[in-house]
Amino acid sequence: MREAFRGEMAAIGDGLVEMTQLVGFAMSRATTALLEADLDLAESVIEHDRMIDKRRDEMDERIVDLFARQQPVVATDLRVLVASLRMSDDLERMGDLALHVAKVARMRHPRPAIPTQFISTILEMNYVAQMIVTRAGEVIASRNVDEALELDRNDDEMDLLHRKVFAMLLDRNSPHDTETAIDITLLSRYYERFADHAVSVARRVVYLATGEWPEPQSDLIGDMPRPGGQ
Amino acid sequence: MREAFRGEMAAIGDGLVEMTQLVGFAMSRATTALLEADLDLAESVIEHDRMIDKRRDEMDERIVDLFARQQPVVATDLRVLVASLRMSDDLERMGDLALHVAKVARMRHPRPAIPTQFISTILEMNYVAQMIVTRAGEVIASRNVDEALELDRNDDEMDLLHRKVFAMLLDRNSPHDTETAIDITLLSRYYERFADHAVSVARRVVYLATGEWPEPQSDLIGDMPRPGGQ
Repeated sequence: MREAFRGEMAAIGDGLVEMTQLVGFAMSRATTALLEADLDLAESVIEHDRMIDKRRDEMDERIVDLFARQQPVVATDLRVLVASLRMSDDLERMGDLALHVAKVARMRHPRPAIPTQFISTILEMNYVAQMIVTRAGEVIASRNVDEALELDRNDDEMDLLHRKVFAMLLDRNSPHDTETAIDITLLSRYYERFADHAVSVARRVVYLATGEWPEPQSDLIGDMPRPGGQ
Repeated sequence: MREAFRGEMAAIGDGLVEMTQLVGFAMSRATTALLEADLDLAESVIEHDRMIDKRRDEMDERIVDLFARQQPVVATDLRVLVASLRMSDDLERMGDLALHVAKVARMRHPRPAIPTQFISTILEMNYVAQMIVTRAGEVIASRNVDEALELDRNDDEMDLLHRKVFAMLLDRNSPHDTETAIDITLLSRYYERFADHAVSVARRVVYLATGEWPEPQSDLIGDMPRPGGQ
């Protein structure tokens, strides 16, 4: 019975790792659609998000099914299941954020949504997003607490990029129209939230491995510099 | 045994209803802090968010504890528990969004973050947020599917306000500096997400009552009008 339970829990872990790959791929393609104003690719990301949602629902069903059949009563096992539900939710939400990026690409098509000087920063944001989601997948598989805590550092990089975007938008020497400011503000937030959810996934792994939550995630928005001199 | 289970599930429902009240209150106070540039109030909302986080963690523990002791094997009971975990997560996230609003107020203090012409729209957004979170609480208590589906209509109102904010920002006759555009874009998104999570809570109630998910939530961002004439 315990053997069977462990086996099924491992399968649920594999499902979560697969979801990290799906949402990483979705964000990567959404970024390409955005930067290349590629409507077909944007549509494909949007369409594909349903599969990610479905994957999450399947994970839910498997978890409920496991409970019903195995009735784990050890607190640790129950925590694994609760955390698994939360992780699949984080991952599904990461898929939504990729979808939002794709929708900005679609909305502004055939014009690119991103002025040239933002391209390299958006590429960096996607690069960090890819690194962090890959690491989140590795951490789910390894349950390695040190690796999980490493993700905070990647998240700091993302926060720096997010601040950089605001600083660029506020640069008086290179003004932007309001539509661009709105698009870029939201896009930057989508990447930043994507990374936050990946960190949240890793934090749940720490919780599973140690029974304790790591220190709270730092929050960027309230600690944003005030480039307007305010 | 079944009686005891029902009783404890009802208590968990009460806990969720209480959370709707806490996050509604948090958003209401954050809005006041924002509009009146009230630093003390903003700090209080920020401080108070920890209590909401703690409340969510307590809900988790109670749910895990209920599983461990009662071992529900009926699929419906399991779905109730899974949905309860998700609802407490939605509600905790709504608390975070109130916190984000308070942080914008704190960041821009002593200057008000909101130009005068946006005040009434932000007040309306808070009004709809209050209505929708109150209704979400009622729906958790009543498990009334019709009431739950009503929330979609409130959410449509919120989406209209969100669009209106963008239209106002893009109005060439009344230009804004980029800092204001960034702040307002994010604030508007916080209110809109707050409502989304409340709808999500109500949708989980429908799922519990009927075993089926209602039609997908409409998504504003990708369907935003293109006031730039694009």
